[in-house]
Amino acid sequence: MVAPQRSGGAERCRFGARGRPPYDDPVPVVAPIDATDEQLAQVRYDENGLVPAIVQDATTGQVLMMAYMNAETLGLTLAEGRTVFWSRSRREVWRKGETSGEVQTVRSAHYDCDGDTLLFVVDQAGNGACHTGAVSCFFRSFGADGDVDAPRPGLAGEPPVPEAAPSADD
Amino acid sequence: MVAPQRSGGAERCRFGARGRPPYDDPVPVVAPIDATDEQLAQVRYDENGLVPAIVQDATTGQVLMMAYMNAETLGLTLAEGRTVFWSRSRREVWRKGETSGEVQTVRSAHYDCDGDTLLFVVDQAGNGACHTGAVSCFFRSFGADGDVDAPRPGLAGEPPVPEAAPSADD
Repeated sequence: MVAPQRSGGAERCRFGARGRPPYDDPVPVVAPIDATDEQLAQVRYDENGLVPAIVQDATTGQVLMMAYMNAETLGLTLAEGRTVFWSRSRREVWRKGETSGEVQTVRSAHYDCDGDTLLFVVDQAGNGACHTGAVSCFFRSFGADGDVDAPRPGLAGEPPVPEAAPSADD
Repeated sequence: MVAPQRSGGAERCRFGARGRPPYDDPVPVVAPIDATDEQLAQVRYDENGLVPAIVQDATTGQVLMMAYMNAETLGLTLAEGRTVFWSRSRREVWRKGETSGEVQTVRSAHYDCDGDTLLFVVDQAGNGACHTGAVSCFFRSFGADGDVDAPRPGLAGEPPVPEAAPSADD
């Protein structure tokens, strides 16, 4: 019997023991996004030089997380084709997934009508976006439902992606 | 020939002339969400007493918009089962859709792992969420694609919802 082919070596398979082989999926194509100066000029940063960036899973539609970018990390995100944020708590550039492997490869990048919020549609590698191990950071609900993973609108009836053990924070 | 049955009278059909009959859809059930004190205590407001609130369409999965709530308007949103924001520019309570009819009925409400971002999954009435007339405020993309409506992840291949003329801002 031939073992299933993985897209990486031992290091890339280190999450396999959690019961969900994240690297059996095709490797997403990393492609820079050539934003024009006119497009970049539409972005309105707040008084701290930051703009909120929503991250949505391209396949499931789940809203995975929201974090902040400054002009530098927005530029890095577009140039590298993966999300790069500004960590407000650590005050440093935060390449999402750099330590955890849970990289977000950008499929498309959008800005809203008044330019003060960004939206990135991504392929999420690994177990999910949240440092708690949840697929989405929005795993808690107001009301009687309490703790649930983020809804996957438009995809009702699909089985939920199994939760994994907490992973290292980025 | 029997005319198609609408769910409302003349007032409710006032958007019909735009070419898309929004009230042919079933009227969404408005239901309050009984958040516990413990859940509400998880929300972290910024130095201005605000928390960003992402709004996602329950049916299409599109991220429609992001706006801000304070403790009062989060309470109103949960109590009324429709989104109510704090308008930073006008410094007043902003009941989404109060003038435009483009009400967002809340299906579920979520908060993220560190409590500093909210997510509302809604039924969007009328033509869409954006004051420009677009379905989603994220109708512009970085890169060669330029202006497109927000992607509908997981639903690739579905025809896009037709755009309507700009509606009155809320």
